Amino acid sequence: MSETIGLIGLGNMGQPIAANLMRAGYKLRVYNRTPGKDGSLVASGAVSVARSSETAEPRGIVLTMLTDDAGLENVCTQSASFVERLGPGGIHISLSTVSPAISRRMAEHHAKSGVAFVSAPVFGRPDAAAAARLWICVSGPEKAKNRVAPILKAIGQGTFDFGEDPGAANVVKLCGNFLIASAIEGLAEGFVFAEKNGVPASQLADMLGQTFFACTAYRNYSKIIAEKLYEPAGFRLVLGLKDMNLVLDAATSASVPMPLASLLRDRWLSSLAKGRGNLDWSGIALAAADDAGLNSPTQKKI
Amino acid sequence: MSETIGLIGLGNMGQPIAANLMRAGYKLRVYNRTPGKDGSLVASGAVSVARSSETAEPRGIVLTMLTDDAGLENVCTQSASFVERLGPGGIHISLSTVSPAISRRMAEHHAKSGVAFVSAPVFGRPDAAAAARLWICVSGPEKAKNRVAPILKAIGQGTFDFGEDPGAANVVKLCGNFLIASAIEGLAEGFVFAEKNGVPASQLADMLGQTFFACTAYRNYSKIIAEKLYEPAGFRLVLGLKDMNLVLDAATSASVPMPLASLLRDRWLSSLAKGRGNLDWSGIALAAADDAGLNSPTQKKI
Amino acid sequence: MSETIGLIGLGNMGQPIAANLMRAGYKLRVYNRTPGKDGSLVASGAVSVARSSETAEPRGIVLTMLTDDAGLENVCTQSASFVERLGPGGIHISLSTVSPAISRRMAEHHAKSGVAFVSAPVFGRPDAAAAARLWICVSGPEKAKNRVAPILKAIGQGTFDFGEDPGAANVVKLCGNFLIASAIEGLAEGFVFAEKNGVPASQLADMLGQTFFACTAYRNYSKIIAEKLYEPAGFRLVLGLKDMNLVLDAATSASVPMPLASLLRDRWLSSLAKGRGNLDWSGIALAAADDAGLNSPTQKKI
Amino acid sequence: MSETIGLIGLGNMGQPIAANLMRAGYKLRVYNRTPGKDGSLVASGAVSVARSSETAEPRGIVLTMLTDDAGLENVCTQSASFVERLGPGGIHISLSTVSPAISRRMAEHHAKSGVAFVSAPVFGRPDAAAAARLWICVSGPEKAKNRVAPILKAIGQGTFDFGEDPGAANVVKLCGNFLIASAIEGLAEGFVFAEKNGVPASQLADMLGQTFFACTAYRNYSKIIAEKLYEPAGFRLVLGLKDMNLVLDAATSASVPMPLASLLRDRWLSSLAKGRGNLDWSGIALAAADDAGLNSPTQKKI
Repeated sequence: MSETIGLIGLGNMGQPIAANLMRAGYKLRVYNRTPGKDGSLVASGAVSVARSSETAEPRGIVLTMLTDDAGLENVCTQSASFVERLGPGGIHISLSTVSPAISRRMAEHHAKSGVAFVSAPVFGRPDAAAAARLWICVSGPEKAKNRVAPILKAIGQGTFDFGEDPGAANVVKLCGNFLIASAIEGLAEGFVFAEKNGVPASQLADMLGQTFFACTAYRNYSKIIAEKLYEPAGFRLVLGLKDMNLVLDAATSASVPMPLASLLRDRWLSSLAKGRGNLDWSGIALAAADDAGLNSPTQKKI
Repeated sequence: MSETIGLIGLGNMGQPIAANLMRAGYKLRVYNRTPGKDGSLVASGAVSVARSSETAEPRGIVLTMLTDDAGLENVCTQSASFVERLGPGGIHISLSTVSPAISRRMAEHHAKSGVAFVSAPVFGRPDAAAAARLWICVSGPEKAKNRVAPILKAIGQGTFDFGEDPGAANVVKLCGNFLIASAIEGLAEGFVFAEKNGVPASQLADMLGQTFFACTAYRNYSKIIAEKLYEPAGFRLVLGLKDMNLVLDAATSASVPMPLASLLRDRWLSSLAKGRGNLDWSGIALAAADDAGLNSPTQKKI
Repeated sequence: MSETIGLIGLGNMGQPIAANLMRAGYKLRVYNRTPGKDGSLVASGAVSVARSSETAEPRGIVLTMLTDDAGLENVCTQSASFVERLGPGGIHISLSTVSPAISRRMAEHHAKSGVAFVSAPVFGRPDAAAAARLWICVSGPEKAKNRVAPILKAIGQGTFDFGEDPGAANVVKLCGNFLIASAIEGLAEGFVFAEKNGVPASQLADMLGQTFFACTAYRNYSKIIAEKLYEPAGFRLVLGLKDMNLVLDAATSASVPMPLASLLRDRWLSSLAKGRGNLDWSGIALAAADDAGLNSPTQKKI
Repeated sequence: MSETIGLIGLGNMGQPIAANLMRAGYKLRVYNRTPGKDGSLVASGAVSVARSSETAEPRGIVLTMLTDDAGLENVCTQSASFVERLGPGGIHISLSTVSPAISRRMAEHHAKSGVAFVSAPVFGRPDAAAAARLWICVSGPEKAKNRVAPILKAIGQGTFDFGEDPGAANVVKLCGNFLIASAIEGLAEGFVFAEKNGVPASQLADMLGQTFFACTAYRNYSKIIAEKLYEPAGFRLVLGLKDMNLVLDAATSASVPMPLASLLRDRWLSSLAKGRGNLDWSGIALAAADDAGLNSPTQKKI
């Protein structure tokens, strides 16, 4: 259990994940492109390295938690990358929300160096990451998944295996985010409908969360929307657009029309146009209220 | 507890509700417009009456479970109706999914005869009704709600009170149906997205139901959609259009645009146009698959 | 040519139509439910009558230009109506924008009195009516259409015959209004797209009107939208919702999903919610600008 | 008038454009990546060159008519490109439908070599190109536009100037294509509405083209849609998706939600999923009929 592993990417998800790995007994070499994010981790015993490649050791394991496809590709394909240093027998666990396509391409790329690519995107906000209560979707080579299972166990409350296709876990992650965003849109419209027909949204939220929608997605977001708790953001709205575009890109590649995803994307663009990029991503719910003539101090009455 | 009450409407919801009322000790006078639905109830001790008004006795209680606004209005406003017979101190419990507007109008109409109108639409399919596990939304006069509480307790697993406005409970019921239908559309699109990107819908359904969508609405419908269990119908698709139109009508009255509700309505029309009216209402999910070129034996490949 | 005919309905379309009929040599008996609309017509020689039925004479012709289905049905089916007075050989020309269904029902109703029902809804705003430049869609019994052809010629610039089905002309009228509203939505989105990408809408409007969209619908509305000329209203926005609902009702009856019509309806509801009911109906174009963060003095910048 | 100019890209638009340039007296050096497209042009006197750079001469003019952004960028930025050969005083006329962004980037890129970039995308199908009846939108440096005016005159029936921003003409071109596609969707829904309500689409098309939609866009496409003349394709459906994506990308960059454009994109994806990629791009109209239960030999009736 005193294995040393690497972690690249110390944003608001990467940091609590690193802390939990150390808590579980792993020794860590950490790297972040922008310096200054590793202070508390180093204080707890992590080794901060100057180049991303130095997080790796031959036949070792490196996790990455990065912003987007470009960030992932860049860190993997630069010359003398951590992938090359891992070499035959090494494993790269990719925790980021990225496209299925990049995972598939990276898996091929890694194979040339004898490195296994395990896709393991996570569901959960920073507080869930801190509590080691992420839900993890995983796909990739069987043997590699077995070897990294204890690592994933240390950071999440459950892992779901979607087979060998390195893109599969990303498909599931994108689909999950689409479904959560769809629930947000439903709640947004439903609550405006209720309010303008005389029923307080909070009463409705209370009933839904106790009955057929008694699950975390509906409980969390119906509370946020009913009480307009969009600040501080758990997941910033401006970042949500990236995920919606990943969904629509993968849908386009597979010729899948998704009118609800298209509606969501338009909600995102409108929210950004109205200066709401720093709200929580559920702030797209304000659009339904805008459309119904609420939120607008300057509106004319008929 | 050996009070005698009336029940009008013995469809696939009214019958199990009647059975549970008798099981709880109530004596029943039952009526159905189309004869022949009361056989087993009479065998269990219910009295079948020839006219809807005969379900009532002065100062008594009558429940109605009818198809639509017109059915409700008709039975209440015909000459020598059960409402007149209930008279001062009587209570009418309306269980049907109808518009907020008709409930408000009936409440006013009943008040002229001294009868309290309690709106109490229910969530749940026939199997939930049979198991006395309906969720009930209630609104109307405080005193009347108190008196009928044991009756509602006998048929459901929980009652949620939305105040005195007789239309409020209907607003909640419509909103709830809209949200369930929205979840169906989300799942429909998400599953086609997953399948065409290589992930079986059933695996996805399994994960969702154990994690952030661990609630009956998602568990039930993700299973139905993933496995295409549209027959036999729990709630017929052709009847769902009525509910969507009620939602959109109430939204129109309150000037609330609901693009997701509009999308759902179009899904309904398309499903009817394609001859799917007798499937379960979640059969609208087939439309997302149609759009993606599935379900169509005659399609050309590019 | 000195035939006396009747006209019921002296709104902002009925009045100029009446004037043109007199200009063409017809003698007129006119009626309007709200009094005081017939001053100038009477000054020009029209006879104002006190009851709608008095506009008719046996075997004569009466035109109606009314607001909606209810207005039409009411004036036709009241006791001792103008239809009964027309009697065998009489003709009713219905110019109003109403549902295909009501036209079909009225045709049957009239037949019982031996009266022919000719549906003849018109395209054009009050200024086109004043210039006798309406476009007229007509359907109904052949013989009746032939007899009234000179009357329609006196008020329009062209008549299009859609056969014997009394509802057919209404179908075409509703379809035409849907197409014009669709063009408005297209222009609205396109102009916001252009403006936010640096191209003035007026330059774009100018180009479109000289090239592939060199037609009145695009020329008129691209000018109105580019220059925001929504007041005074040629056709009030609040009335446009009626037409959209007629379109969607007829679409529902025929199981025709129309996502663009659904989008338009939502634009209408939003416009009404924002207090824009008295603008020209093309004022729905403001919604696309709202969504893009324009029109909103209070918006926050990112 | 015996000036020698270059043309890169001899597809079904480039070829008739080249022919018209020669007809107007220009000498041509032509290049196409895939060989064998220049036979008839060479027979008419054009010089076929082996490298794209050889189409250029110092201070000369080169036109490009290419498929997409990547094709344009590639031919401009390869080493020893035609742009370098043009050098100070040279002009590149870009006729392709590409993004505003690439035009702006290319303009900056060309400026380093002293070459003026004139954006001049065209409206019109191959038959319009052959008849020298294209509509041309132009933007770029004033002086360069003046010098190339006779060239544009030789291939089109009119040029519209949108100022100095090299991206402006592309914005207009994308907006125009969006508006034409919007008109197609409107006609598609409207015609299905009419047909299922008993009015033949061809009668409706006839009326529209003589009245408020008496313009080429509506006349052409209402005939194609009413009579289902989707083969052979004037502009292939599979290529139309590229244009819709360019619209949505530019809309995203400018935070402009366009629900009608989103609907169109979904129509495209559905059409491709159903194997309709080789139909004319107006073949997206079949989707409205699909949704209404038409086009489907296997549908069940209710």
